[in-house]
Formats: sequence, structure tokens, C-alpha cells
Amino acid sequence: MTPSALLCQFRLIGLCRKWCSSRAFTCQAAVNQLRREQGATALAGRVDRFGGITVDLADVGLPKDISETAFADLLTDSLGRWKSEGKVAVWLRVPIAMSRCAGAAAARGFTFHHAQERHAVLSLWMGAGESKLPGFATHQIGVAGAVVDESNGKVLVVQDKNKTKNAWKFPGGLSDPGENIVTAVREVLEETGIRSEFRSLLSIRQQHNHPGAFGMSDIYVICRLRPLSYDIHFCTRECERCEWLSLAELARTADTTPITSRVARLLLHGLERGFESIDLAMEELPAVYSGMFYQLYHRQIPSS
Amino acid sequence: MTPSALLCQFRLIGLCRKWCSSRAFTCQAAVNQLRREQGATALAGRVDRFGGITVDLADVGLPKDISETAFADLLTDSLGRWKSEGKVAVWLRVPIAMSRCAGAAAARGFTFHHAQERHAVLSLWMGAGESKLPGFATHQIGVAGAVVDESNGKVLVVQDKNKTKNAWKFPGGLSDPGENIVTAVREVLEETGIRSEFRSLLSIRQQHNHPGAFGMSDIYVICRLRPLSYDIHFCTRECERCEWLSLAELARTADTTPITSRVARLLLHGLERGFESIDLAMEELPAVYSGMFYQLYHRQIPSS
Repeated sequence: MTPSALLCQFRLIGLCRKWCSSRAFTCQAAVNQLRREQGATALAGRVDRFGGITVDLADVGLPKDISETAFADLLTDSLGRWKSEGKVAVWLRVPIAMSRCAGAAAARGFTFHHAQERHAVLSLWMGAGESKLPGFATHQIGVAGAVVDESNGKVLVVQDKNKTKNAWKFPGGLSDPGENIVTAVREVLEETGIRSEFRSLLSIRQQHNHPGAFGMSDIYVICRLRPLSYDIHFCTRECERCEWLSLAELARTADTTPITSRVARLLLHGLERGFESIDLAMEELPAVYSGMFYQLYHRQIPSS
Repeated sequence: MTPSALLCQFRLIGLCRKWCSSRAFTCQAAVNQLRREQGATALAGRVDRFGGITVDLADVGLPKDISETAFADLLTDSLGRWKSEGKVAVWLRVPIAMSRCAGAAAARGFTFHHAQERHAVLSLWMGAGESKLPGFATHQIGVAGAVVDESNGKVLVVQDKNKTKNAWKFPGGLSDPGENIVTAVREVLEETGIRSEFRSLLSIRQQHNHPGAFGMSDIYVICRLRPLSYDIHFCTRECERCEWLSLAELARTADTTPITSRVARLLLHGLERGFESIDLAMEELPAVYSGMFYQLYHRQIPSS
């Protein structure tokens, strides 16, 4: 090849490179600089008291458009360093726009721990034996309110729209993140228009592999509420029917769910002998960690 | 430029392309074929009864190494089609190795719904108003067992290793996915060596923004257990101390947590007046969906 052809070749390779993957090249340069700066050691992270390290990819100066290959190289360097330091676990927080880094991490043994909205968290156990890393949330919480009118022994019930079997049940729904069990009051208001106040916790159901919970587990709580209003204005998008039904009839009918029927019998017993025999009282106590309050439910202890 | 230089240029561009991004080119060809086969319409998905569509990227014939750009083009085509069909939501199931597709989806408005082990699920709400998509699991469940020896009024307590304050508490731990509340029995055995059987549920605490739950919520349940063995062989990795302590002393001491102290008082009351006054009984009932059983806890209803 003539010198001019060679020159042409190199200039063209340069052009092609720019044209094909200018982003990747910018990236690689930035990463190389980062590797030089960090002495080709490890991504910067926060060490925890369990011998793990957490790296937030939004926080370590990586170019947002880093390629999978470039990140894989950085991660390989880092893992070598962390292993030699005796770290037992690595947590990677990956912004959703940099998700390709999760793919590169997967090739090095990382798996998803969880993901929410605009970030994913991956983890890798490097210690001896089985992973000792804690899991993520496993349960959704559904709350329902049994609003009992003590003056006539009736309770507020609904039938869901679009269900094959029209079964009476207590109004309720899934708790939003951060909501307390007592939000049964809100659910009842939204679904039926009835205002009420929380009195007690009556029953708890735990169920696994729930199809309505993406295969996760479900805790369903029924609370006893006292009505503050009586005129029903139910949500026609959610409910087919909404009525005040006598507890005796609800305990007897086949048009209900096993749990609703059971709690109707429990409430009948409470109506006859006093609700204190079936209630779990609630109390708010200061939380250690958050400066917030937690809710504790148990049987009332008589003051001695 | 001479004809031979031109030829050289084109051959080199060809070589460079292959060298720079042979994978991307293979990819793009496969994707183009897919777009031709599918009439440039939409990724194949499963339509649900809520007007949404679910696409599993492991299942639609995409090349595993599809580039972000190629997937973005496919997704743009698909979104146009789904919108014109009036779909209100799109769910994307993304294998971890194809995580770069999550980045491309994020640029089109998708966010993470959840992720587990080797896949992530992203969602996009396209309906009117606020998203009506259900959330993912929000709570972890911790279970503890209060093993009460009725013959002497003592209860089994532990002090955690590596805690600044050595507070007595009931042995327990986080439930593994799919485990029932009654696994307090297993937790107690692993931590203390004491065999026991489940008697009742005593109390429930709900707490949000829990630092030990990745900022999510936590439900902590204390069960009453009956001892089946008495010789302590505690786990020295988890516990500093483990003892049979009198309930009266546990209810009195400052070296404990507020919840443990409270439940000690509750148990003292039960010891004096009968545990039926403080217990929630458990019953297993057949689940509608899974062919499995669920656990229902509430106050015992006396047989009438």
C-alpha cells in the first residue's frame, strides 16, 4: 500500500470510528481517564458495617452514556480490588437510563435485588457459603373496613363490579406505600361515600403466590370502623352494589366470601357480648429510627 | 480521489463497520427482519382484561444482543400501534442480560415497576389521568416468638450481638419469601435451639421508611409459642446472650425494647387470667386462587 493510501486508511478508520460509535469513544476516553484517576482500582462506594460496599452509578462520575463494555471493564477492575479487600457483598444502584450497566453486571454474577421507578439495585454475594443478604419487600397490604352501625346491627357491604360471582364483602383496597392500616377509613370513604372512624383491628389473613400481587404475598386486614355518616354514595366505577346489610344476614348468606362470613360471625358475637371481646386495640408509639410513629396492635391490657 | 482510493475508502468503511460494531449490525438486520415480518407494527404481547398489554422480551424473538437504538425503534413502532388500539398500559418484562432495553424504554416514559433476580418489569400508563396500575410489594414481614413456660412464668429472650444497647427481646427474624407467620417457630429454633409450637398471634406493629427494609415498610408480628424443649443452645453468630427470664422482670426492666416490654405485660396478664384473653387464634382455609391455603387470625369465636 502506498503511503498516501495508508494515510487514507488511518484517516478513514478514524472517521469510521467516529461515525460508528462516537458516543462509545467519548465514553471510553472518559472511562480511561476515570481509571487513570482512580489508579485503575475500584469504583468509589460506601462501605457498610456488614462488610459490603454500595456503589451508586449516578454518583461516581461515570459518563451517562458509558457503554456496556467500558462499564464491564471498570467493574472487573473493581471486583478484583473489592475481593482482595475481603468485601463480602456489592450493591449497585443503577439509574434507569444507565440500565445497560445492569446487563454488564449480570455477566459478572450480579442479580436484581429490587427496582423502583427510576433506579434498580443489583447485588452480588462474594462471601463464603449461601448469600446472607436481606431480601426486599415481599408483601402487599390490603385493608378493608367493617363499618358497624350498633343501633341496628347492620354493616356496610359492597359487591365489586365485573366479578363473575356477586359476593358481598367489606369495602377496602390496597394500601398505598407508606399508608397505615387505619387507611381503611379512606378506602371506605372513596368506595362508598360513608365517613367513619377507626375502632379496632379484627382479623389478618396471610396468603402467598397471589396472582393480584405479581406472585408475591398478600396480607389482608379487616378493621372495625364506627360510622360518622349513613347516606351511601358509592363509586360506580368500582362497585355494582353497596348496602347496609344486617350482620345476621351476612353471616348466613352464601353470597359472600369465606372471610367476610367469618368476620360477620365475629362481629355478631361482639355486638352481643361487647366489642372488647373481639377487638385488637391500636396505639401509636415513637419509632426508633425515623422520628416517626409506628402503630402497635394487640389486645387491650386492662389497667390494673 | 482516484478510483482505487475510492475503492479503498469503501472497503475500509465496510471493514471499519464490521470491526466497530459487527454485533450491532447483526442485530439491526435481525430487527429489520422482525419489523418486516411483523409488518412494522408492534412487539407481540399478551392483552389483559384491564386494557393493558404485557410484552416479555425473552419471548418475542428479539436477538439477545439487540442494541438500545434498534430496540428503541421497535418500541416506538409498537407504542404507536398500541395507542391507536386504545391500550391503556404497557408492561415490559426485561431479562437482566437485555437490561439496555430498559434504558431505551425509560427514554419513552417507562419506569421500573419491580425487579427480581434475573428480570425487571417496567410499566407505562397511557390511559387518561393518573396511573391506575397496581404497585408492587411494600412490606417485609418480621416474626418473633414469645416462648412462655407456663410452669414458672418465664419467657425465652435474647440479646443481639453487635448492638450498642444490650436490650432483651424475643428471638425472631425476617420471613423468607412464601413463609407463614408461624415460621416464628423456625426462627426461634435456629436462634436459641429451643423447640416450640405455635399457639397464637399476640401483636402486630406496622412501621414505614424502615432503614432495614431499604426504606420500605415493615410489619413485625409477635406470636405466643409453647416450649417443647428447655435446654438453650443459642447461635453465637447472632446472639450475645439467651436466657429464660421471668415475665415480671421483663415487664419491669429498662434493658428491653418498648414492644417487648409491652408484650411482656400482655403475657403477664394472660398468665394470670388465661391466655384466651390475649390470643388471636389461627386457622387455615383453602385459598381461592392457588389451590394452597391461607392463614386467618382473629379472636376465637366461642361455639354457641
